[in-house]
Amino acid sequence: MPEYQAPLRDIRFVLHDLLDAPAHYAGLPGAEELSPDVQDAIINEGARFAEEVLAPLYASGDAEGCSWKDGEVTTPTGFKEAFEQYVAGGWPGLNAPAEYGGQDLPASLATVVNEMMGAANWAWSMYPGLTSAAVRCLQFYGSEAQQRTWMQPLIEGRWSGTMCLTEAHCGSDLGLLRTRATELGEGRYRLNGTKIFISSGEHDLTDNIVHMVLARIDGAPEGTRGISLFIVPKYRVDEDGALAERNPITCGSIEEKMGIHGSATCVMNLDDAEGYLVGEPNRGLNYMFIMMNTARLGTALQGLAHTERAWQGALAYARERLQMRSLSGPKNPDGPADPILVHPDVRRMLLTQKAIAEGSRAFIYWLALQVDRADRLEGEEAEAAAALLALLTPVAKAFCTEVGYECVNLGLQCFGGHGYVRESGMEQIVRDARIAMVYEGTTGIQALDLLGRKVMGDGGKALLTLTGMIEAFCREHGEHPALQPLLEPLQQLATELPELAMSLGQKAMEDAEEVGAAAVDYLMALGYVVLGWFWGQLAQRAQQRLDAGESDDFLHGKIKTARFYVARLMVPRFAMHRQAAEAGAATLMDLTDAEFGA
Amino acid sequence: MPEYQAPLRDIRFVLHDLLDAPAHYAGLPGAEELSPDVQDAIINEGARFAEEVLAPLYASGDAEGCSWKDGEVTTPTGFKEAFEQYVAGGWPGLNAPAEYGGQDLPASLATVVNEMMGAANWAWSMYPGLTSAAVRCLQFYGSEAQQRTWMQPLIEGRWSGTMCLTEAHCGSDLGLLRTRATELGEGRYRLNGTKIFISSGEHDLTDNIVHMVLARIDGAPEGTRGISLFIVPKYRVDEDGALAERNPITCGSIEEKMGIHGSATCVMNLDDAEGYLVGEPNRGLNYMFIMMNTARLGTALQGLAHTERAWQGALAYARERLQMRSLSGPKNPDGPADPILVHPDVRRMLLTQKAIAEGSRAFIYWLALQVDRADRLEGEEAEAAAALLALLTPVAKAFCTEVGYECVNLGLQCFGGHGYVRESGMEQIVRDARIAMVYEGTTGIQALDLLGRKVMGDGGKALLTLTGMIEAFCREHGEHPALQPLLEPLQQLATELPELAMSLGQKAMEDAEEVGAAAVDYLMALGYVVLGWFWGQLAQRAQQRLDAGESDDFLHGKIKTARFYVARLMVPRFAMHRQAAEAGAATLMDLTDAEFGA
Repeated sequence: MPEYQAPLRDIRFVLHDLLDAPAHYAGLPGAEELSPDVQDAIINEGARFAEEVLAPLYASGDAEGCSWKDGEVTTPTGFKEAFEQYVAGGWPGLNAPAEYGGQDLPASLATVVNEMMGAANWAWSMYPGLTSAAVRCLQFYGSEAQQRTWMQPLIEGRWSGTMCLTEAHCGSDLGLLRTRATELGEGRYRLNGTKIFISSGEHDLTDNIVHMVLARIDGAPEGTRGISLFIVPKYRVDEDGALAERNPITCGSIEEKMGIHGSATCVMNLDDAEGYLVGEPNRGLNYMFIMMNTARLGTALQGLAHTERAWQGALAYARERLQMRSLSGPKNPDGPADPILVHPDVRRMLLTQKAIAEGSRAFIYWLALQVDRADRLEGEEAEAAAALLALLTPVAKAFCTEVGYECVNLGLQCFGGHGYVRESGMEQIVRDARIAMVYEGTTGIQALDLLGRKVMGDGGKALLTLTGMIEAFCREHGEHPALQPLLEPLQQLATELPELAMSLGQKAMEDAEEVGAAAVDYLMALGYVVLGWFWGQLAQRAQQRLDAGESDDFLHGKIKTARFYVARLMVPRFAMHRQAAEAGAATLMDLTDAEFGA
Repeated sequence: MPEYQAPLRDIRFVLHDLLDAPAHYAGLPGAEELSPDVQDAIINEGARFAEEVLAPLYASGDAEGCSWKDGEVTTPTGFKEAFEQYVAGGWPGLNAPAEYGGQDLPASLATVVNEMMGAANWAWSMYPGLTSAAVRCLQFYGSEAQQRTWMQPLIEGRWSGTMCLTEAHCGSDLGLLRTRATELGEGRYRLNGTKIFISSGEHDLTDNIVHMVLARIDGAPEGTRGISLFIVPKYRVDEDGALAERNPITCGSIEEKMGIHGSATCVMNLDDAEGYLVGEPNRGLNYMFIMMNTARLGTALQGLAHTERAWQGALAYARERLQMRSLSGPKNPDGPADPILVHPDVRRMLLTQKAIAEGSRAFIYWLALQVDRADRLEGEEAEAAAALLALLTPVAKAFCTEVGYECVNLGLQCFGGHGYVRESGMEQIVRDARIAMVYEGTTGIQALDLLGRKVMGDGGKALLTLTGMIEAFCREHGEHPALQPLLEPLQQLATELPELAMSLGQKAMEDAEEVGAAAVDYLMALGYVVLGWFWGQLAQRAQQRLDAGESDDFLHGKIKTARFYVARLMVPRFAMHRQAAEAGAATLMDLTDAEFGA
């Protein structure tokens, strides 16, 4: 089982060298007093918790899984104790509003902590993760009374939250949902229906569970315009906030899944459950988007977290496993064979993992900074951050989970047959990572959101802002001889992205299917360029230090990994996705149903 | 759980239209009397057995798995009864020599049957699969006395076989193996050591198990030149062939794995076990190659088998699952939404599976015909077949399992969240398929064999024979307006393969690491062209029938899938792999150990 070690050196390099986090926090309303020392202390403490408390439960939580009996769910041994420590450490309130007991720290700092806790134990981290999403939704759309009742216990970690969207017949297409709500007066409703795939829907970690439920009020319009959002607690709450009667929202069963066995995935039955309308009727889907965006960034982080874990395991194994001699002469002449790290194909697999892990970290942390800005700044600055977030959230979600899944499979592959065996810990990472391309909107759904709505929907404006930033960076640093081989192809591909979007848009005017036919390839092409932008920046920052006379392996490794990324991943894969995106809808749409097969 | 239906229409199209199997068998020594009726009867009966006996045990075998107690292994419920039916049906001897009780049918017919049985239940099919490999090894290299003793019971299915190669410290690098053999005289040896990852090493299906074991005779040279092959039975056999004492080769434990839970993966301890030398001392690795080649083709078939199973499940689900409306207008206006089959990105995922499944079938069946020819013809004809087999066996093994794994993941993806849940049956296929890129030589090992040994080792001769065949086919049919868009790019890429090999060879003269750095990308590039050749041929055969006035959905589907394959997969992916292969070794080799990370 690969030990997890929080990659603190790399985290600091991203926060300090790439993002200049201390200056960012100093200019962020409400975070001005978050000194570098305090930032470091939080991150170090999060690392310790991840390594010492959560990581040891990773394999055992998978082997034991959750169990269901008579509507009650028991989490794996140790999960509850770890959760108690998490609460005692004040972690649930990290970036929650101070007026309800939170510490009001910026979202980006929580992202760093979430990466480490997620890498240490993704299944466990889903319980607090969904709670944060519920808090965020209440914070934005709950009434003052609702905030008073529900937020503090969530923020203190006494209660937890869920998102109840999916039903058996509707996942991507929420317009079909059937759970119905009948008004009882005073904002109270009686809810009936069945939700499936509800993460943390029932468990033994907290005293109460606050479900955020999408349902259709009797008489509401059909489709997505008739969906409202409700708070439906497991236990109702009296006027003093004390737990009252059990509300009939119950867990009918939990799913047996490929992975994340420690996370309870519940069927939730609402049988005349009492719920409280959030905001206005029929606006539920809009409200839910705030949770979904948080969840999408959280899922992007899952891609990173699993990649980091697999990469750590694979690198350690490649250094210790002796097998065959290097083709260019023995590198370990006194041993029976060379460590497999010397073999070029093993290096290809390792560098792919390193490039994706470290590139994704830079990308996602930078996105988290945009969340800070969108949340806390005003006017144009906030809008600019929100526009970048809107464009790149689907990319981070889909791209980081797709390439992350490739990487965890490469991690297993580095172990050979040992990787397929439970004991190595590598196959669990593959099983856990597989869900990330599915939940919170599949890769296909993210790609439609990106190309249809975010790129074409605003006539390419947001895209041109992004590519303009990339091109400006390339112009600024492209003359440096060490950076030129990286930035020249990056600049070229950045100019191709709007061209490609434009040509797809023109085709789409004649055939609406062209967008769907090209969407996933477009998203992946864009993802490789965005990661290339971050690799360009990481290399530039490393080069700056080298030029200033510093020299260490970490900095040289950054520049060389950037070269690998550009030559072996970005350039060839962009070309492939561009060609596939341009291949047109006809080859997909021409087959009749019967021509697919009997 | 997707039902398995043997794809008989497609199998017949490949055998009859593509390969003209009746004529092939009519000209094959020993198979002249295998009439088309008998061929059909065998395939139909194999299909029935796969669908009715094996497929129902697929999910239950996974859930239950094998269990170990005091050295004994129990296979999942139903596996033993299925094996008894398999034996009663005469299947174990299908392509085994008649003089030892086999039916002496060509290997290619067994390949068809093995595809169906493997798709129905891969884990179960590994028990007879390894037995066939052992039989083949004894047939080629066993002494007459050894053949008399061991082959008949294996062929009758009373006993089963294994391959014991791997040890804890050596998998890819068998030169390191330590199991030792001490001569007792008269070809008898005493063996000591521990083997791991031994499929079917212990189980409850047969009365005896015949292990083919690699070991080092005391005093033998180090490395691969000192390895010998031994027969080590679980029970020794007296002169009449009756079972005698238990031989101390025992199962110490079985592995907990990601998938193929129904297949027992054993640690085998040899404690003074008696073994019988096969052939000459120190030639074991050469003898084992015959088993390994059989096993590599069998593993290629695993890629196909899982892809077929996933594709069947995904297509059925895409027809029945209603979610969202087609962007070009409702296709199911009376229903609440359209079947997801209408969405272009779902079609992209489905057509990828269809193109890989049907293309791999054509490729692998054709390779199996080359096995027939190499086995049963003489002189130049046999040599030509053997040369094609040598070149393309590593490609089939690595390419069909790599793209197969992509496909089973796409199959799961078509199900959305339901695919991640056990009940759908899709996640099991992913778990089972994952091992195929690892065992019988990883993708990296196959790629080194291909590029280093098979392509460069003979100066490109075998490669030029292959690309010459592809180009000749393109020239012959490239003028047909329906085929021209397929064959023009195919011909182009076929000419690029030797160019690429040549330029890599030149670089390799200066830096030996260039071969390893390019090998996997070269193999994948070649794989896409070979599959393109088969898709070209499948389209040409379908077009021939259409031109003759036939018209049915199957034929139209073939041509349209070929178009999809060429435009969306072959052309863009070849370009990517070519570019990556040409990127050179430097970006991989430049990092020092320390620059990879702490």
